[in-house]
Amino acid sequence: MVGDMEQVLIAGEWRAPIDATGSFRALDPATGEAIGPAFPRSGADDVELAVVSAAQAADALAATEPAHIADFLDAYADAIDATKDELVATAHAETGLPISPRLAEVELPRTSGQLRQAAQAVRDYAWTQPVIDTKAGLRAHFAPLHKPVLVFGPNNFPFAFNAVAGSDFASAIAARNPVIAKAHPSHPATSRLLAALAHDAAVACGLPAASVQLLYDIEPALGLRLAGDRRFGAIGFTGSRTAGLALKAAADAAGIPIFAEMSSVNPVFLLPGALRERGATLAQEFFASCTMGSGQFCTNPGIVLVPAGADGDAFVACAAEKFEAAAPMVLFSQGVQRHLADAVQALRAAGARVEAGKAQAGGPGFRYAPTLLAADGAAFLANAQALQREAFGPVSLLLRYRDENEAVALAHAFDGNLTGSLFAASDGSDDVAWRRIAAALRPRVGRLIDGKWPTGVAVSPAMQHGGPYPSTSHAGFTSVGMPGAIHRFAQWQSFDNVRDDRLPPDLRDANPFGMQRRVDGVWSDHTP
Amino acid sequence: MVGDMEQVLIAGEWRAPIDATGSFRALDPATGEAIGPAFPRSGADDVELAVVSAAQAADALAATEPAHIADFLDAYADAIDATKDELVATAHAETGLPISPRLAEVELPRTSGQLRQAAQAVRDYAWTQPVIDTKAGLRAHFAPLHKPVLVFGPNNFPFAFNAVAGSDFASAIAARNPVIAKAHPSHPATSRLLAALAHDAAVACGLPAASVQLLYDIEPALGLRLAGDRRFGAIGFTGSRTAGLALKAAADAAGIPIFAEMSSVNPVFLLPGALRERGATLAQEFFASCTMGSGQFCTNPGIVLVPAGADGDAFVACAAEKFEAAAPMVLFSQGVQRHLADAVQALRAAGARVEAGKAQAGGPGFRYAPTLLAADGAAFLANAQALQREAFGPVSLLLRYRDENEAVALAHAFDGNLTGSLFAASDGSDDVAWRRIAAALRPRVGRLIDGKWPTGVAVSPAMQHGGPYPSTSHAGFTSVGMPGAIHRFAQWQSFDNVRDDRLPPDLRDANPFGMQRRVDGVWSDHTP
Repeated sequence: MVGDMEQVLIAGEWRAPIDATGSFRALDPATGEAIGPAFPRSGADDVELAVVSAAQAADALAATEPAHIADFLDAYADAIDATKDELVATAHAETGLPISPRLAEVELPRTSGQLRQAAQAVRDYAWTQPVIDTKAGLRAHFAPLHKPVLVFGPNNFPFAFNAVAGSDFASAIAARNPVIAKAHPSHPATSRLLAALAHDAAVACGLPAASVQLLYDIEPALGLRLAGDRRFGAIGFTGSRTAGLALKAAADAAGIPIFAEMSSVNPVFLLPGALRERGATLAQEFFASCTMGSGQFCTNPGIVLVPAGADGDAFVACAAEKFEAAAPMVLFSQGVQRHLADAVQALRAAGARVEAGKAQAGGPGFRYAPTLLAADGAAFLANAQALQREAFGPVSLLLRYRDENEAVALAHAFDGNLTGSLFAASDGSDDVAWRRIAAALRPRVGRLIDGKWPTGVAVSPAMQHGGPYPSTSHAGFTSVGMPGAIHRFAQWQSFDNVRDDRLPPDLRDANPFGMQRRVDGVWSDHTP
Repeated sequence: MVGDMEQVLIAGEWRAPIDATGSFRALDPATGEAIGPAFPRSGADDVELAVVSAAQAADALAATEPAHIADFLDAYADAIDATKDELVATAHAETGLPISPRLAEVELPRTSGQLRQAAQAVRDYAWTQPVIDTKAGLRAHFAPLHKPVLVFGPNNFPFAFNAVAGSDFASAIAARNPVIAKAHPSHPATSRLLAALAHDAAVACGLPAASVQLLYDIEPALGLRLAGDRRFGAIGFTGSRTAGLALKAAADAAGIPIFAEMSSVNPVFLLPGALRERGATLAQEFFASCTMGSGQFCTNPGIVLVPAGADGDAFVACAAEKFEAAAPMVLFSQGVQRHLADAVQALRAAGARVEAGKAQAGGPGFRYAPTLLAADGAAFLANAQALQREAFGPVSLLLRYRDENEAVALAHAFDGNLTGSLFAASDGSDDVAWRRIAAALRPRVGRLIDGKWPTGVAVSPAMQHGGPYPSTSHAGFTSVGMPGAIHRFAQWQSFDNVRDDRLPPDLRDANPFGMQRRVDGVWSDHTP
């Protein structure tokens, strides 16, 4: 700590801020009281130094042996595991998320596991996807950007999506690009701890010292300027639609690829037979999924579609009872609390009624009462944009649909989402409805889920954590799952008539990594 | 022909325009005289009908058996081959491009071959890239957009990049998306002929009739409105930077992925030893590459870097002689002629001198004298943006570099390009320079070329016809080469816990296509 502010990690070292435009402290969301030290909001000079340093490190990092990159990712993962108690305690204090199981048993292992999956993708070179055409003398693969990546982290995963530890970070580094991490200001001490582990691991593994840099916060105007700075090769963002669209506009204007995840309501269709078979269980699971982490998940079930009729009524009554009985839940920040209150107000103004819960914010700290809203399918069809606004927190909107045809029409009315779920009967009685609704939903969601609630996101190569606009900025990419997530931060490069010893190793005849490559149209691990 | 205007292909049939905003005729570029019939410039009602029809066809096309899509692509390719004489004669009349070898032996076979490669990619399903994680219960692949694709074709390849026959068209259809083709107005009869073949093949193969639609031209304002219409799933564009950036801004604002190819100067580095060994041959090859097709190639060698000294002087003298002796060359249109004159004037204003040729436009028709400009490396470094402006036509800028260090600095000064080429000595004397310059050039170009001129673009899975911004809008994608080009028009979709019979065939346990899939981290053509 220097003077009265924490140091920033810029240009390869922890240093006093040059021109902080202010300072801030983390707040305990359960009490609203400030905790921990003061952190700087970085100014233009600090940021410029970070950008220059990252740009200078980019060529060196791109030329670094992949084995060292993988060693770094593994070493960082080990350091996170070894620092688990301190990390979990710090994140708990700053976010209000439960230590167990959420932070200690779920999110932290997921974060280190994700870094190790990135290390494995680097070691087996799979992400470069070499293609060799011996007849045309052409060879191509995915390669580093040779420019830094700017990562904006969200509030809701202090580890797994942290700008200096999450999937964007792991993916960008795996593709050998330096990262400037703009952490979320709601958990600065957690971010500082992670950045210290990352920096130490980077130095120990021989990466250029400016490969990892950390800013705790910057003014929004400076963020927009950065997003349009062509010294960046790409941008990763996870957060609100408002912030995401503003950054996307700045990046688009400068021709910088931006991969922004920007909210989702994750429609869940409950089919009649499923409710008949296990309505009470589904109501219980729904309540758990909607309120887990105080509902602050990108894949929170924000809209649940329930058929008209007795089984649907019973489901609603059962769920309503749970929402009604629940105590107000701690949110990450006053901002989240305010946005949630605004969203609920807007949904009510658009015709949603309060089915259960208090639909209101409260204290101490930043809390909101779990709330169940409801509307008829016809109302949704008449006002679909307003009624599919995300309410980030422990709030869901139940849509009652009249019959299968209306359910299909509702599925067609959804904009792009991360996920879409269906629950069908085990006896086959919902199968026709399943097919019709799934057909409408499929192109509108990144992940189609059968018989499960959407809140779990496995780190898997077969994951799509992404979806059509406006849930993300590009439906062709995922932000979770290796090696796919790495392609966001890579460019496709071809070598035409280039002598073997001038090629990158994964494209050479000798195939030094013994990898599977597409050679003259067939998969091969041999020399062409 | 209806009244005095040709019919448009909209909503599955050839029909009279509803609200043409004007009409135009093709011009013979060698004479400037109008040839052939009048074609409508389509108005908002025609365009709206096309968009509605395409959107309606999208789900049906996405659900079409891939085998039928492949049959269509093959049938269309066969029809193009069978109509070769008429196509070639029509394109020659409208573009001034030589019948032989260019149109008859190069571009037409390339076009039908490209359609057949797309058919093959559809048949072997390789473009869907299935990934299966049996432990997590997740399966993912690339899938259709379920929305139409809007393709803007360029002036310079009446077949191979035609909006209704080229790579964008083939790629979008291969991914089972309907296409609205906005043809280039400089070759309407060629586009009509192709569209007729495509439409007949589509109907014969059972594709939805509105899978292929053709607009000969629209007002720019209507084009911008279309580019921002969220009923489109993606946009393909090949053309000028000005038009490309305007369309990109409209598409970006609406969240529509646009794949725009927008000009390139394709730097070529001639190293000292190469000039010593074969300077005269290189001068001859350079002249041929620069003036082929009247220089109207995206990969035209627009800037050639020549070392100071006697061998460099001899190369310049030899090239200058050829440019000086060449007759003015026929360009595609008055617009191309005017833009070329503007570009040459701007380059001269930025400090380039005329080394050879007349640097001027002339007649009959639309001609320009092959022209060699020159500047010193230091001048380029001082004014790099102005001096790397594209001059689309038979014009190149020679940059004289003092030494290896200046050559490396020049390589660093280039913006994103489609290609970058190096010519080195065979005796190894240029090897150090090659490595240093190539290292600087590599991240700035899509295709790095060794010892060849850039004008040939092979249709190969190992091609990158694309490059960093502003040469294209996204360096992660290629517009030429299957299956890569198809991914531009696809979305990544995951299936979570979905029952086997509800999965698309390529993700089912039985692996009905016997394809190579990534299953639990390894390549396999078996049932998991």
